[in-house]
Amino acid sequence: MRINLKEAAEFLKSCKDAVIITHQSPDGDCIGAGFALRDILAMLGIRSRVICSDEFPKRYAFMTKTGWGEDFEPQTVIAVDIADTQLMGNLREEYENKVDLCIDHHISNIEYAERLLLDPDAAATCELIYELAKELGVELTDHCAACIYTGIATDTGCFKYECTTVRSHEIAAELMRNHKIRYAAINREMFDVKSIGRLKMERIVTDLMEYYLDNKVTMICITNKILNELGVDANDLDGCASIPLQVEGVEVGITIKEREDGAFKVSMRSADDVNVSAICQKLGGGGHVKAAGCLVTGTLEEVKEKLVETVRQSLEVE
Amino acid sequence: MRINLKEAAEFLKSCKDAVIITHQSPDGDCIGAGFALRDILAMLGIRSRVICSDEFPKRYAFMTKTGWGEDFEPQTVIAVDIADTQLMGNLREEYENKVDLCIDHHISNIEYAERLLLDPDAAATCELIYELAKELGVELTDHCAACIYTGIATDTGCFKYECTTVRSHEIAAELMRNHKIRYAAINREMFDVKSIGRLKMERIVTDLMEYYLDNKVTMICITNKILNELGVDANDLDGCASIPLQVEGVEVGITIKEREDGAFKVSMRSADDVNVSAICQKLGGGGHVKAAGCLVTGTLEEVKEKLVETVRQSLEVE
Repeated sequence: MRINLKEAAEFLKSCKDAVIITHQSPDGDCIGAGFALRDILAMLGIRSRVICSDEFPKRYAFMTKTGWGEDFEPQTVIAVDIADTQLMGNLREEYENKVDLCIDHHISNIEYAERLLLDPDAAATCELIYELAKELGVELTDHCAACIYTGIATDTGCFKYECTTVRSHEIAAELMRNHKIRYAAINREMFDVKSIGRLKMERIVTDLMEYYLDNKVTMICITNKILNELGVDANDLDGCASIPLQVEGVEVGITIKEREDGAFKVSMRSADDVNVSAICQKLGGGGHVKAAGCLVTGTLEEVKEKLVETVRQSLEVE
Repeated sequence: MRINLKEAAEFLKSCKDAVIITHQSPDGDCIGAGFALRDILAMLGIRSRVICSDEFPKRYAFMTKTGWGEDFEPQTVIAVDIADTQLMGNLREEYENKVDLCIDHHISNIEYAERLLLDPDAAATCELIYELAKELGVELTDHCAACIYTGIATDTGCFKYECTTVRSHEIAAELMRNHKIRYAAINREMFDVKSIGRLKMERIVTDLMEYYLDNKVTMICITNKILNELGVDANDLDGCASIPLQVEGVEVGITIKEREDGAFKVSMRSADDVNVSAICQKLGGGGHVKAAGCLVTGTLEEVKEKLVETVRQSLEVE
């Protein structure tokens, strides 16, 4: 059942001994929402505990320093930033049919919860947490404010992405006006700091990049031979798909991965105006305008030629 | 003479045929301020022209598309975001003693102008341009709003750095509420896009990085031998000094450059709490808390050892 902000606030006021579930592969928004909500419930005199199927990355430690919560038999189950019960990881079985309230901003939410506070226009679930706190008349602690700020910052790429809204900036302004937030240090941790492993991966990707069509197209070919030579796993390179789009003038970034059966899995990303879904459809695939894919067979050289030719035709039409 | 916002607005209303000077090595803030001010003057019916000693980088082209301005004999000279006449480049001789109004946010402003509107608490000169427009009661065009947004975004690192204020977020919110700004595309151009050359340089820097003291310290040694082998100029590596600090856990980033005379020029940067100025002072140098330098003689191995040992002692004390 969809509920509004007021109803969600009423529910929170009356709840008891709550577990707050965050999603697997936890990020700044679900962690921020979880720990901010725990602070808010504490101010209402309600015990709570944050749980997650996965460990939190180290850079989020400042949010958990207020503690994960008390030990009790849960009476209330709240899910934050979880669009689908599949995203609960190994907590799914225990909780998927028991969620009393879900607070979320994903338009893809499958409405699994008893009560759903959903606002797909919010850039982050943390924006909803902020509005709930206001509705509840709760005075935020600096820690709670920092959690909310972090959630908004991470989901908007520090106010950089399309999803950033007027409200995102307004909430950031209000949080910074009324609270001591180490925003510069938080942003450095969230956006600038990389692991040594990640740095190495970026180097590999940069090395593998081939340029086509006046540098408008870059291609990375990850063959089994290359992986063996480099001693890395294909999955390690997953997060690097956006790197080619960072290069000046590049409109389409293509990643080709050799499969066990010899076919090639193609991922295509577009920087701005090019519709890569349409391009991939011509090759029997599909996807979103800015991120699509297809499967192509043939020798590596044939596949590369076919891809470049198809992209060339599309760029000419546009 | 220092003037306030109201006085600056009065001056702008009464001025005629204005040249607007932006600083050398132009960035998003001075370009944004220059072209936003040109829009504002146009709305007041005043002719103006933006000038700069250097060419603008291509990524700022969307700001100049309204035109650089009319051709006339200037009656008014306005400098934006220029703290010192030295920063006028080859325009200095002609204009340094003729600036009627300077609009700036650098606390280091040497007060060279007849009238100075200075607010060191502003994150960007563009924040002052926005406030001037409000004071003048001018309705901004979307182009003008985009220029102001870009100036604030670039000087705050997209709202990431310490200098970001409540006001920065508030102005961004107001601009986005009232205007069509392609903020995601602008931010991509400003922050994500890199030239192929820059990407290569980052690769070289990553390759040269050595790790010490449990990876808390990274060192890059740029010897003449290495430069010859790579076929690059030492200056090409200048903008890469902050890369070592992006590595998780790194507290001090050291760059060593071999000089012609065989001595080593050392630059030290700190991520957070370490005072590298104090460390460099021990080696006969100095600087700022987070960016300092010194000159060390000896063989490369001796210099490296001396540096690591000095940093080690400082980290232990902290």
